[in-house]
Amino acid sequence: MPKPPVPAELDAFLQQPNPAVIASVRPDGSPHSAATWYLWEGGRVLVNMEDSRKRLDYLRRDPRVSVTVLGKGDDWYHQVTLRGRVVDFEEEAFDDIDRLCRHYLGQDYGNRDSGRVSAWIEVQSWYGWESGHYWTGSD
Amino acid sequence: MPKPPVPAELDAFLQQPNPAVIASVRPDGSPHSAATWYLWEGGRVLVNMEDSRKRLDYLRRDPRVSVTVLGKGDDWYHQVTLRGRVVDFEEEAFDDIDRLCRHYLGQDYGNRDSGRVSAWIEVQSWYGWESGHYWTGSD
Repeated sequence: MPKPPVPAELDAFLQQPNPAVIASVRPDGSPHSAATWYLWEGGRVLVNMEDSRKRLDYLRRDPRVSVTVLGKGDDWYHQVTLRGRVVDFEEEAFDDIDRLCRHYLGQDYGNRDSGRVSAWIEVQSWYGWESGHYWTGSD
Repeated sequence: MPKPPVPAELDAFLQQPNPAVIASVRPDGSPHSAATWYLWEGGRVLVNMEDSRKRLDYLRRDPRVSVTVLGKGDDWYHQVTLRGRVVDFEEEAFDDIDRLCRHYLGQDYGNRDSGRVSAWIEVQSWYGWESGHYWTGSD
């Protein structure tokens, strides 16, 4: 898998409010996956979870993740997978969930009933895929 | 996570040609993820890969997977994650990739240039999610 930075075309794709799935590893070594909002900022991936989520425990134990980002709507034949690791957790990250919610839904998340934790993911390698072949963003 | 069978409402959802991401585990214990077509048949998940795909090696080594299925288009706020393991591989599975392609694109895959391998996944547990809470399919 290529190393960062990702090419401009894929960078622009990742900046869209796309559906994404984050994969992590359970303590028994089996994979965990869950849909997630994300923000692509400065070549890193921001995700945010309720503080009660099991995958937060998994990430604290083993920070290795793989995030597959799909094109919106019928365009999920464009995909970028980012492989990396969580390098930072931030507690009480209500500003981040508001930012994520504005990116996806155009409004603040607002809910302050449960704690929110952010995780910043450093990308170590990536691959793009489009309709049956690698998507490299080059002509 | 609840055990199978999945409730009727989620079963109907899984029968649609939805975007999906399959997570598996690399030999170094890190997670791998990739978008995939799937068929939901008899409570099992069928996926099909080119025989050169690395994740085929990963699955043969460790058959544990997690498949997150997203609603189509803007409806990815409906999600079902199926946790299970590959219980059977089938080589030369061209009929299966044709079936998958018809399900998603309405036409045979046709391409016979590379080998195709099917993997049947037995589901051990699942969870549904819709807009911030668990989706159980009950009223």
